[in-house]
Amino acid sequence: MSKKAVLAYSGGLDTSYCLVNLTREKGFEVHTVIVNTGGFSKEELESIEKRAYELGSFHHETIDITQKYFDDCLRFLIYGNVLKNNTYPLSVSAERMFQSIAIAEYSKKVAAEYIVHGSTGAGNDQIRFDVAFAVISPKSQIITPIRDERLTRQQEVNYLLSQGVEYSWEKAKYSINVGIWGTSVGGVETLTSNQSLPEDAYPTQLSKSEPQTIEIEFKKGIPFKLNGETLSPVDLIQKLNEIGGGYAIGRDTHVGDTILGIKGRVGFEAPAATLIIKAHHLLEKHTLTRWQLLHKDSLANWYGTLLHEAQYLDPIMRDIEAFLESSQNHVSGKVILKLHPYRFDLIGVESPFDMMQSKIATYGEDMDAWDGRDARGFIKIFGNQLKIYHSFE
Amino acid sequence: MSKKAVLAYSGGLDTSYCLVNLTREKGFEVHTVIVNTGGFSKEELESIEKRAYELGSFHHETIDITQKYFDDCLRFLIYGNVLKNNTYPLSVSAERMFQSIAIAEYSKKVAAEYIVHGSTGAGNDQIRFDVAFAVISPKSQIITPIRDERLTRQQEVNYLLSQGVEYSWEKAKYSINVGIWGTSVGGVETLTSNQSLPEDAYPTQLSKSEPQTIEIEFKKGIPFKLNGETLSPVDLIQKLNEIGGGYAIGRDTHVGDTILGIKGRVGFEAPAATLIIKAHHLLEKHTLTRWQLLHKDSLANWYGTLLHEAQYLDPIMRDIEAFLESSQNHVSGKVILKLHPYRFDLIGVESPFDMMQSKIATYGEDMDAWDGRDARGFIKIFGNQLKIYHSFE
Amino acid sequence: MSKKAVLAYSGGLDTSYCLVNLTREKGFEVHTVIVNTGGFSKEELESIEKRAYELGSFHHETIDITQKYFDDCLRFLIYGNVLKNNTYPLSVSAERMFQSIAIAEYSKKVAAEYIVHGSTGAGNDQIRFDVAFAVISPKSQIITPIRDERLTRQQEVNYLLSQGVEYSWEKAKYSINVGIWGTSVGGVETLTSNQSLPEDAYPTQLSKSEPQTIEIEFKKGIPFKLNGETLSPVDLIQKLNEIGGGYAIGRDTHVGDTILGIKGRVGFEAPAATLIIKAHHLLEKHTLTRWQLLHKDSLANWYGTLLHEAQYLDPIMRDIEAFLESSQNHVSGKVILKLHPYRFDLIGVESPFDMMQSKIATYGEDMDAWDGRDARGFIKIFGNQLKIYHSFE
Amino acid sequence: MSKKAVLAYSGGLDTSYCLVNLTREKGFEVHTVIVNTGGFSKEELESIEKRAYELGSFHHETIDITQKYFDDCLRFLIYGNVLKNNTYPLSVSAERMFQSIAIAEYSKKVAAEYIVHGSTGAGNDQIRFDVAFAVISPKSQIITPIRDERLTRQQEVNYLLSQGVEYSWEKAKYSINVGIWGTSVGGVETLTSNQSLPEDAYPTQLSKSEPQTIEIEFKKGIPFKLNGETLSPVDLIQKLNEIGGGYAIGRDTHVGDTILGIKGRVGFEAPAATLIIKAHHLLEKHTLTRWQLLHKDSLANWYGTLLHEAQYLDPIMRDIEAFLESSQNHVSGKVILKLHPYRFDLIGVESPFDMMQSKIATYGEDMDAWDGRDARGFIKIFGNQLKIYHSFE
Repeated sequence: MSKKAVLAYSGGLDTSYCLVNLTREKGFEVHTVIVNTGGFSKEELESIEKRAYELGSFHHETIDITQKYFDDCLRFLIYGNVLKNNTYPLSVSAERMFQSIAIAEYSKKVAAEYIVHGSTGAGNDQIRFDVAFAVISPKSQIITPIRDERLTRQQEVNYLLSQGVEYSWEKAKYSINVGIWGTSVGGVETLTSNQSLPEDAYPTQLSKSEPQTIEIEFKKGIPFKLNGETLSPVDLIQKLNEIGGGYAIGRDTHVGDTILGIKGRVGFEAPAATLIIKAHHLLEKHTLTRWQLLHKDSLANWYGTLLHEAQYLDPIMRDIEAFLESSQNHVSGKVILKLHPYRFDLIGVESPFDMMQSKIATYGEDMDAWDGRDARGFIKIFGNQLKIYHSFE
Repeated sequence: MSKKAVLAYSGGLDTSYCLVNLTREKGFEVHTVIVNTGGFSKEELESIEKRAYELGSFHHETIDITQKYFDDCLRFLIYGNVLKNNTYPLSVSAERMFQSIAIAEYSKKVAAEYIVHGSTGAGNDQIRFDVAFAVISPKSQIITPIRDERLTRQQEVNYLLSQGVEYSWEKAKYSINVGIWGTSVGGVETLTSNQSLPEDAYPTQLSKSEPQTIEIEFKKGIPFKLNGETLSPVDLIQKLNEIGGGYAIGRDTHVGDTILGIKGRVGFEAPAATLIIKAHHLLEKHTLTRWQLLHKDSLANWYGTLLHEAQYLDPIMRDIEAFLESSQNHVSGKVILKLHPYRFDLIGVESPFDMMQSKIATYGEDMDAWDGRDARGFIKIFGNQLKIYHSFE
Repeated sequence: MSKKAVLAYSGGLDTSYCLVNLTREKGFEVHTVIVNTGGFSKEELESIEKRAYELGSFHHETIDITQKYFDDCLRFLIYGNVLKNNTYPLSVSAERMFQSIAIAEYSKKVAAEYIVHGSTGAGNDQIRFDVAFAVISPKSQIITPIRDERLTRQQEVNYLLSQGVEYSWEKAKYSINVGIWGTSVGGVETLTSNQSLPEDAYPTQLSKSEPQTIEIEFKKGIPFKLNGETLSPVDLIQKLNEIGGGYAIGRDTHVGDTILGIKGRVGFEAPAATLIIKAHHLLEKHTLTRWQLLHKDSLANWYGTLLHEAQYLDPIMRDIEAFLESSQNHVSGKVILKLHPYRFDLIGVESPFDMMQSKIATYGEDMDAWDGRDARGFIKIFGNQLKIYHSFE
Repeated sequence: MSKKAVLAYSGGLDTSYCLVNLTREKGFEVHTVIVNTGGFSKEELESIEKRAYELGSFHHETIDITQKYFDDCLRFLIYGNVLKNNTYPLSVSAERMFQSIAIAEYSKKVAAEYIVHGSTGAGNDQIRFDVAFAVISPKSQIITPIRDERLTRQQEVNYLLSQGVEYSWEKAKYSINVGIWGTSVGGVETLTSNQSLPEDAYPTQLSKSEPQTIEIEFKKGIPFKLNGETLSPVDLIQKLNEIGGGYAIGRDTHVGDTILGIKGRVGFEAPAATLIIKAHHLLEKHTLTRWQLLHKDSLANWYGTLLHEAQYLDPIMRDIEAFLESSQNHVSGKVILKLHPYRFDLIGVESPFDMMQSKIATYGEDMDAWDGRDARGFIKIFGNQLKIYHSFE
């Protein structure tokens, strides 16, 4: 009797080990699944599929959720201007969560008795996988060979060689995770606290030197035009990654708390995420009220934190999303940016809802909306509570 | 019988008008006071004093509160990494508040029957003045000729000419307010929403092209060493303004809500504030716990907002300051930055309290602190509430 | 040429003065409008209409918005368990805001050139009226005779007598504002800080002595059944006011901040609001996640504060409403309460979404969901950050 | 060679099992420690000590931390008016945390190689113990026999009998944890969601029927006088428990989230905590500014949540404590309460810092501080942002 197992497969060393080991030694019928959130090319996906079948996959499935990833996640990260610790666009955190959910849903659909991931016991990814699997496909038993057996890289390579699997598994100098919302870069420098990644660690290299002005247009918070051309949000992001990448924009190193309570550090390049979020934020400063700006900041910070910490399935996330979506009603208009090598300027905005250009009152202009007598009355009352509080001293 | 009036005097057109008019026509004994928060040079202060006496000041007082301004305000803006709307270091907001308070305290000390400022009814400054005056020196009656009489610039010049006062009052193309924590720049572009200030609007011009690495060292959140040299915080800020200014670092345009409910836009250059806050923030990411980072952000955002909105005298500000000061216990260490024209990189930190380099557990390393079995248990329980919530579906 | 004015009319002394004075002496065509949010009986409304015409109203309009008041406001106060300063259900604050909006909309519809209210310059109501009028009907000029002329009660009575208007205007010992969401009571005791209202100041008197068990059933946060009987929310509230009023439940004295910065004190009785909010809150404790409970509390507190402070028309309120509505997805079930004179007990709940009765895991029971080894692993990792932080000491 | 183990000993079945088993079968030298936070009488402590030695304790230690418990914890729960989910004074959560810390500190002091607690793997207490032990006494290895062996109550009794230990271990109908800040009560009803505890489940029974007026006086947030008599806070709390207990005040049932993610329910009686917190809160409404009230609420809610969740040792708690302590500067004065069976009324306050009785401005009185013209100006400007936002519609 076969034991059907769904394996979250990436084609890398760890998941290849799982595939071979579970198939050949443990008698599992392994269904390999890879979930594309926009970070893989067609060629990569085909090459991964080919390898999966070579290594014994019973069935290989490629699931593309790029559009869903935008609709259910990236959209809200834009609405919320979410940069974890004011730095990191949560590229990997968000992507892995959505991959975990897609695999869990697939497992449930095919009624897999087992569900497998190749994460170690050291990091965040295991949590995203385990939680999504247990919540969405509770009848599938979770198997985690790498975490359980604590194998070293070399032990895995040796095992695969002993099984006649001879790919080149040499470790790249920098470990890279390419995603539509950002590419993470880890290396020897990110294990220290006082060194930054060298220029050549970044997959995308500076290729432009002349400044360039671009325009991003938003409709209710969603970017839909780039330099006048209407694009789907996903296409716009990919195009903006290309343009901004040429300027090496959106690079930084993030230091953050893992769900396990320790601090980790990772480099990243995220040109589109950086440009879109900063442009969107500027548009909001012109179109939202003071109260909206204050409360959005705080809630969106929580949204990013909870997303990072594998809490995407908590209903609080739906509640915050409802808040964020509601807040975007007036966030429409064009933002003008000027790109330079390694940096960009926010030039300004044009919006029908620009509260700075209202006919009611304009900053620095002579006031029609109120006069000096009004202002005197305003301040007199505005200061009431302070006057009372300090009257006891 | 003389009517003693204390006038917040800057030497500009508006306050010169007040001085002349109140002295010559209204019979006041005007005491001019200027408060230096680090933005004025010795020469400027002497020139202002000279003019004050020329225009009829009964007594001129220069009050230097630069150190107090750091101790009672800038220090907390650093602890809180306060950038209003994630952009503006509150250069003018903070400075004007402290000038208002110093003038109010002086008025109280000399038992002035009247207290005068030259603000119009259009902006934030009148609120800071009026509130500080009414709270701290409640027995002094507030007089505001410019706000009450709604005089145009030309009317003021004509009046002064008619009084034989012939300075050159031509309006500068850009209105500049120089301060230790930042210099604001207003001009025709900042009245629009879609244009940015031209390069030459900024008082400090780019003068360096070669990158330079600098080190800022903090002790419990306070910057006290620059490139190995121990300096008072005020000296350190001024030196950092010089260094960073040469790279044209810390320029941006801020769009924000005035206390009067309308949106305003202002350019600024704030090299030291920008470099210190970003360096300090990075050090905090390494040395504070997740809970501290989360709550500090939100409270410090409020601190900045309330400071901007003339609420410095509300006791909530003392409460937030107590929180912020307590949070800095471990925020000691060195931050390394690399300056380039118009931008800088945060290279890294070295700190005895760096939680990333603890012996307990290290990210990405093999784990001594827990094993795969622990991790499995952790996640199982970590996911309990989500499993329960979704079990009803 | 007639000057059309809409007057927010209550039939009381102040608005009667406005009606007579504006009609007879100032040449206005006064349209009186009264807005019922559920606090007036049919008889009261007829009597007010009659008086309005007697005093010279050109046209009298009674607008009933009780259902809209529930849908657009009370519903969210229930979702958010909103009790200002943990005490006051915002009875008057909410009601007056909605009356102001209804009058402003009416004025806009009839294109009134003027819009009048009878509030003084001392309290919150003037702000609700002025703001709603200026935002919704910006072309109508606001007229406020009582505020402008600072008339005493006696001056108004004398004026009306001189005009042949002879109602009995004697001041009641306690000023009462009856509303569906609570009745406020002000009197000589509420002007002090150390006395409470006497028993007989409350309009509803204790009439029951035997305890009674009741059941309120909610569907997605909305109360829809009382003791098994399906009722519209408005009917349910009114019935619950009757039942709870007989037990003198929901009485208290609130001390709060007015929008003008001073503290005020008011007694109230609000049986239905109190019972519904406490029952709803208990149901939420059983059906919401920890994160929902934490964030709802804080946002709902802001919702109440901003509603109280005449900010209902700020779009942040729509954003918070979206959050609150989303949060109610599982808030369905029955709450059992036991009423006693002056107090009640929350007995418990029954809900299909009760997270305490899940099959996944149950408190205090032997654990199927995890074992001691899992718990050990959980806590080991749970304590990581604290261990790291304290390892430096 | 002896193995020194410190055992958190209560004299109950679980810890007696640990003591006997570790001593007789595992060769440990067991040092029993009991920590009194004010819940044990002298007699109880002596009886526990006697039993400890009978069962084989090498050394028994009674540590009294009642005063420290007030100074380092209860004080802040009062400052913050902390009631978890607006209900529960955190009686057990706080107490167990402090007992865990005291035992960890003792273990560290005596350099115990092992540290033992008798908690199961089902609840919160194990987390408080494990975390405190690992953080404070990291060199002591944690031993948890009950959690590891998953013994039933009967198995423990049988084992003890087999060892000749014959106490009566019959299970009480209700499990009671007596503490100075509240006594928890668990029973068959608290395992349901829809039943409440019967009257006789509560250890303290109603004994008074006549209403009684009492006065609690606070100095900077700390209760120091009861009915005019100066008392230490600990004595005051104990006396108030007596008085309020006679009226059966402060009883309720709490439903909350455990740290393990499941919901639990527990009854409690906490007369002193309830009376002090409600009295303190009322005094704050009179003496704090609007901003203090708003932000205190939110931060104190987090303080309670994190305390409950075994995060007392996180430095964020020290930061919040600094905030809370600062906020109490004006919270001095007398609060008058009237006690009735099962309930109480807050009559009012008398305070030199009562902002309601300031000479600057008084609610409902004729206004000296501003006039109608000021109010008109105030509201005009107050409404600016709403007018602008809605001008686009």
